[in-house]
Amino acid sequence: MATLGHVKILILGGDGFCGWPTAMHLADAGHDVMIIDNLVRREWDAELGSGSLTPIATIEERLDAWHEIGGREIRLALGDLLDWEFFSAAVAAYRPEAMVHYAEQSSAPYSMMDREHAVSTQYNNVIGTLNVLFAIREFVPECHLVKLGTMGEYGTPNIDIEEGFIDIEHNGRRDRLPFPKMPGSFYHLTKVHDSHNIHFASRIWGLRATDLNQGVVYGCVTPQTSRDPRLVNRFDYDGVFGTALNRFCVQAAIGHPLSVYGKGGQTRGFLDIRDTVRCVELATVNPPAQGEYRVFNQFTEHFSVRELAEMVVHAAKTLGIEATIEHQPNPRIELEQHYYNPKHTALLDLGLEPHKLSESLLDSLVNVAIENRDRVDESVIDPRVEWTKTHNPVSAAGVVAS
Amino acid sequence: MATLGHVKILILGGDGFCGWPTAMHLADAGHDVMIIDNLVRREWDAELGSGSLTPIATIEERLDAWHEIGGREIRLALGDLLDWEFFSAAVAAYRPEAMVHYAEQSSAPYSMMDREHAVSTQYNNVIGTLNVLFAIREFVPECHLVKLGTMGEYGTPNIDIEEGFIDIEHNGRRDRLPFPKMPGSFYHLTKVHDSHNIHFASRIWGLRATDLNQGVVYGCVTPQTSRDPRLVNRFDYDGVFGTALNRFCVQAAIGHPLSVYGKGGQTRGFLDIRDTVRCVELATVNPPAQGEYRVFNQFTEHFSVRELAEMVVHAAKTLGIEATIEHQPNPRIELEQHYYNPKHTALLDLGLEPHKLSESLLDSLVNVAIENRDRVDESVIDPRVEWTKTHNPVSAAGVVAS
Repeated sequence: MATLGHVKILILGGDGFCGWPTAMHLADAGHDVMIIDNLVRREWDAELGSGSLTPIATIEERLDAWHEIGGREIRLALGDLLDWEFFSAAVAAYRPEAMVHYAEQSSAPYSMMDREHAVSTQYNNVIGTLNVLFAIREFVPECHLVKLGTMGEYGTPNIDIEEGFIDIEHNGRRDRLPFPKMPGSFYHLTKVHDSHNIHFASRIWGLRATDLNQGVVYGCVTPQTSRDPRLVNRFDYDGVFGTALNRFCVQAAIGHPLSVYGKGGQTRGFLDIRDTVRCVELATVNPPAQGEYRVFNQFTEHFSVRELAEMVVHAAKTLGIEATIEHQPNPRIELEQHYYNPKHTALLDLGLEPHKLSESLLDSLVNVAIENRDRVDESVIDPRVEWTKTHNPVSAAGVVAS
Repeated sequence: MATLGHVKILILGGDGFCGWPTAMHLADAGHDVMIIDNLVRREWDAELGSGSLTPIATIEERLDAWHEIGGREIRLALGDLLDWEFFSAAVAAYRPEAMVHYAEQSSAPYSMMDREHAVSTQYNNVIGTLNVLFAIREFVPECHLVKLGTMGEYGTPNIDIEEGFIDIEHNGRRDRLPFPKMPGSFYHLTKVHDSHNIHFASRIWGLRATDLNQGVVYGCVTPQTSRDPRLVNRFDYDGVFGTALNRFCVQAAIGHPLSVYGKGGQTRGFLDIRDTVRCVELATVNPPAQGEYRVFNQFTEHFSVRELAEMVVHAAKTLGIEATIEHQPNPRIELEQHYYNPKHTALLDLGLEPHKLSESLLDSLVNVAIENRDRVDESVIDPRVEWTKTHNPVSAAGVVAS
């Protein structure tokens, strides 16, 4: 496997939480970068009455700022993957060597709000990815698809989780097969569906693809986002798009108890946003062979929710904040005590040097929350979607309407 | 598990090849039956320029005939699962105790024609099944979903195929997990996606479901279809919706060589249409507990394509026809020699008494083909869709347009 020096990269969803810092990181690393985004993530903020804790600029302002400070050109095409005329024309014109695909609805609670949101999530993600596969096949068959999956595809089986495939011995015979999947939301299910569709395209058409089963990303700062206020990345803390660690930091900053749902034994893989962008780069510059579908588990450490909360309590203390932990009912259906031992050596073997969730990083995360304390909307923090309900009306005012 | 005597059953796709004989069989067995169908299968005939070898009546004529001969009432609601207003109202009004879900695009070649057909197949099947899950959850949470899957979900792994789940021992720990899936077309993929979505709904909402991973169905005659010419079932032999055994019978009847694609070592599970309707009945009257998702492998024998062809040659001989076998290039990407040992004991344990593909049955199948010889359109028999191509224009005249 030869490491590539310079790659022409199309980033689908390049205005999002992972996409935007990835675009700047890859441009800084000397690659040609073009973004496609339909800006729908910003519309979901409006729909839910929530928004980034950090003030974020428009995509146009972001790109202006990036080019003003001398960043290597990032091109932009505004449009939707589901619009085949638009998308296929963009791919045919740009002819990328790699396509990094972040352009999916990425919130489990959003997908569990009601039937409409479950359907729109599965439609957007599954059909969007089908269009990606057909665009690669038709216009750039050697293009490497770098697809963001999720560690949540696996669920929490009682055996070690391998990277995508497992050697099974059964009744005296052996085969290496896709690792069984037990995802926990209609969103997580879409990533399982995508994985099966992409694997098939690699077998039938000889496409090359890397499925990055990513853990929960924390932090929002990279060397590039710090260069100008207009380059700042989004930081979600609300009950729909926010994740536990961000919520805990905000709760500490505004003097609320840290809300742990259920027993807090739920254990997940985590990684720093700076490792997300590096993992994507490592996958991109080390492409698989034509016809190869490989899966990397993309996280660096795993913690239980209870452990995370305790770490934030400790970090807050060093900043003079006395935070407490409060257990609340779990809105999700999930095991709260379980075995969890997922492998994650493939990206380390390619050279990943992980940022660990140390005290110092937690300090800086709590500091982001403290600096933006005045922007916190307390009404959006609590869970607004229960897994057992099929009607979770979430009003734009940020409270459950019924 | 108590066996139910009388069940109120909604049959989704009840005008189709499996749905129509199932509706009559279940009504004859004393159950309350209502059909929902959007008649799109008949539109696909028009789109492809093909049609049933047997002359089939309209759904209205079918139901008139059924009621004229004294069949127990079968109700009908014409409409589409994807139309939530229509579908949810029908479910809320009828309040079925079981829902038999055949309402999917069921052809692998159709799904492989081009991007539009891949997308429409995944959209129709996956979103339709999501609507089914939400309708059950909202209106009839105790209703038993009897969903038609396919043996093609598994692909051809080098280990024994279990019924849906497999006990895996790995690094000294054990779990029972979903059997890994390696489907072979965008159509087969939809069944895998459905399986994951249904399994999730059972875990989260406590729905009860049986996933019937069905083999290739042959024959078209049941005791009910024989009662009146207007009750006759469809018989597909074309390159898009037809299956190998039907094609061989038609080729023998019109004096063409039987076309075996590739080496013919491709081995699949098969069952008689009379066993399809009986399996669905057995699953329906023996429902799983609330929250249980079970998988039955629904086939009775397995054969290689080459073996099937040889059996048809032999059966034709007894009818005075000298048939020959001709190998042609395989339009699909699949292993042509492989291990195949799928388990199928669950339905036998419930009381299934299989019809075997004996000489006598093959005689009668070849006879169906001979009786309808004048209706054969030779131009639709050959493969019209190649797996490696993403543009397979199939004109309504029944020939590949380019």
